[in-house]
Amino acid sequence: MAQADTVVVIVGGGFGGLNAARALRRAPVQVVLLDRNNYHVFQPLLYQVATAGLEPEQIAKPVRAILRGQQNFDFRMVDVRGVDLAQRRLDTSAGPIAYDYLVLAYGGETNFFGLDRVSRTAFGLKDISDGITIRNHVLSCFELAMLETDPERRRARLTFIVVGGGPTGVEMAGALSELIRLVLVKDYPRLNIKDVRILLLEATDTLLAAMPERLREAAAKTLWRKYVEVRFGATVADFDGLEARLKSGEVIPAHTMIWAAGVRAAELSGRLGVTPGRQGRVAVEETLQLKEHPEVFIIGDAAYHEENGAPLPMVAPVAIQMGKSVATNIRNLLRGKPLEPFRYRDQGTLATIGRNAAVATVYGIRASGFIAWVMWLGIHIIQLIGFRNKLFVLLNWAWDYFFYERAARLITRD
Amino acid sequence: MAQADTVVVIVGGGFGGLNAARALRRAPVQVVLLDRNNYHVFQPLLYQVATAGLEPEQIAKPVRAILRGQQNFDFRMVDVRGVDLAQRRLDTSAGPIAYDYLVLAYGGETNFFGLDRVSRTAFGLKDISDGITIRNHVLSCFELAMLETDPERRRARLTFIVVGGGPTGVEMAGALSELIRLVLVKDYPRLNIKDVRILLLEATDTLLAAMPERLREAAAKTLWRKYVEVRFGATVADFDGLEARLKSGEVIPAHTMIWAAGVRAAELSGRLGVTPGRQGRVAVEETLQLKEHPEVFIIGDAAYHEENGAPLPMVAPVAIQMGKSVATNIRNLLRGKPLEPFRYRDQGTLATIGRNAAVATVYGIRASGFIAWVMWLGIHIIQLIGFRNKLFVLLNWAWDYFFYERAARLITRD
Repeated sequence: MAQADTVVVIVGGGFGGLNAARALRRAPVQVVLLDRNNYHVFQPLLYQVATAGLEPEQIAKPVRAILRGQQNFDFRMVDVRGVDLAQRRLDTSAGPIAYDYLVLAYGGETNFFGLDRVSRTAFGLKDISDGITIRNHVLSCFELAMLETDPERRRARLTFIVVGGGPTGVEMAGALSELIRLVLVKDYPRLNIKDVRILLLEATDTLLAAMPERLREAAAKTLWRKYVEVRFGATVADFDGLEARLKSGEVIPAHTMIWAAGVRAAELSGRLGVTPGRQGRVAVEETLQLKEHPEVFIIGDAAYHEENGAPLPMVAPVAIQMGKSVATNIRNLLRGKPLEPFRYRDQGTLATIGRNAAVATVYGIRASGFIAWVMWLGIHIIQLIGFRNKLFVLLNWAWDYFFYERAARLITRD
Repeated sequence: MAQADTVVVIVGGGFGGLNAARALRRAPVQVVLLDRNNYHVFQPLLYQVATAGLEPEQIAKPVRAILRGQQNFDFRMVDVRGVDLAQRRLDTSAGPIAYDYLVLAYGGETNFFGLDRVSRTAFGLKDISDGITIRNHVLSCFELAMLETDPERRRARLTFIVVGGGPTGVEMAGALSELIRLVLVKDYPRLNIKDVRILLLEATDTLLAAMPERLREAAAKTLWRKYVEVRFGATVADFDGLEARLKSGEVIPAHTMIWAAGVRAAELSGRLGVTPGRQGRVAVEETLQLKEHPEVFIIGDAAYHEENGAPLPMVAPVAIQMGKSVATNIRNLLRGKPLEPFRYRDQGTLATIGRNAAVATVYGIRASGFIAWVMWLGIHIIQLIGFRNKLFVLLNWAWDYFFYERAARLITRD
């Protein structure tokens, strides 16, 4: 227990909040992290939970376990309902919690861009429960297709639409194709693989917009070779759970839509008493402080911050670096030192498309195919929190790679 | 695809149904297995899912994956609603399914002995979802206790009642004690372990009634040393989710009751058109056939069969042996040979109470302590289906043993 009187409350145990808490371990403050879940999720591998490749426990770890040794740390599993900036107090499901410094790292949620019905019928992919829901649904589609006597309805059950050609959409479509074509075909000897369709719908005319053109083209080509129908200029207008309607008027009978087309800041943004900007993100100073409230920092997906005229992307590396920067600045504030402005160091992006296939631009190195895939593997294993998770994920991947398997093919019930 | 015209329908993918299906692999029949879940569960380790020691995926495997190579096998994920014995037809959620031979292996469910409110407030432990529900609830109790300012309510949140001193209750109570005293104490440095109570309530005056007396006493003593309050002659009269009332009038404030006091045949027993006997089990002939319906076999928890004047216990080995016996007898029927009567070969029982502690009577060998624990480990690893599950469970156990850990401490939401 720290004897410090200064209380730093961190809202959210994602990449930003966790890194802020850890970087404050030697600061003379009491750190209290709040989250509605008791665990931190390694979101970049969530799509592997959704495609039965990894078990939920392998990419998540309890926050208390991660920060177990940290003397000045405490965790509370609560819902944060609002912030009273004037009183420096949070309204939570366990009553009010006061702070001296506040780090808002509540992250993002799926952005359906106002498509109300789609938000109820399509699946987002932001939390463990989303991953399990998609896994259960996809596997159920195959079980139900086996019971279906009407060929049109069977094909609709076996048509999977992934919306959005960013890294999540690309990885999801690739993993779904491999789950079906390498693994499920063995489980369902009576399945006609020609009844299966996987579509990746992208509104613009390119996948992975953050990548150099050569790699974008390589990604699209690789997906196509895995029998993913990569469709450009395809904007979803509606989906009722049985068929999707595109803006062009095209109608696609399908029972599954996975929505990876957008993220926005979580709804807490709307309850801070400040006007959120684009994607519900709240504008911050260069030091990540809230204007007129220097004791409040906003980081990660929740923060709106421009560099070189463009908003920073809503990705894990931004949140991680912001978390560390905030910890430094809180220490500076305590010592009366001037604050450092935040500068994002872009280390590049990676996306895997399946066995031996990925695209990567990391530290200036551009690669595709097997080399990029090995880079992807290494970087993800290194970033996973905890040696146990690293070991079990690696074993899982090795097994699946050599035996063309996916272990977590259970349809669990609620 | 088998060309056989004879259809054997098996209801239930538990130990009985699975072994019957597998033993029919060379028979000239088409085997169709029905289950509402797509997986087989290794029920003897379910309590380890409930206590965050194992991940659900490690003790369950999709039925299609287990029987993948079997040419004459097909699986359908359906709910069986009833049986029309006269028409030889099942009523299922996917329409009627006709059979030539029927193997009813629908198993058991938690028996609350008519305690209506307890059936809604206490947790059973029969399926993967039960295990996950208990895990989430127990971990939530600790998170909520940390937010509780009232000391009485905090203690009630940290009081865990396990009902029933059979193997499930004993293993559950021991595992719960170790989860809390070896692992959670590290997660909750502010937890006062004296606020925690674990009670094992047994209505009779002995645990593990099937064991020899020396081992029963050893089990009770070992649990007591792990700070489990083992209470004999304690019968639950009511539980409202906040406090338990015993027949004696004793009232125990507690937010958790895990019910391991009884099993009965699943409710399908009541919809066969025959009168079920004790525990909802349906009486069968010596050959496990239903009287007046020689084409219908009933096995496992669903079957009532006496040997040496006592009903066979509702345990996995009985179901496994019955499954194999039924497969033999169906082959005998097809060849016009006389049927074999079923004889249970009791191989003994085991129960583990935690680290280095178990009691076992196996093949006439009686042991307790470390030797029994090693026997328990070996037998369970051997019986787990699939090399991958064996490997991952073994790694998990080794890790937890050496590092005093439990990996699956996630509170997942529905």
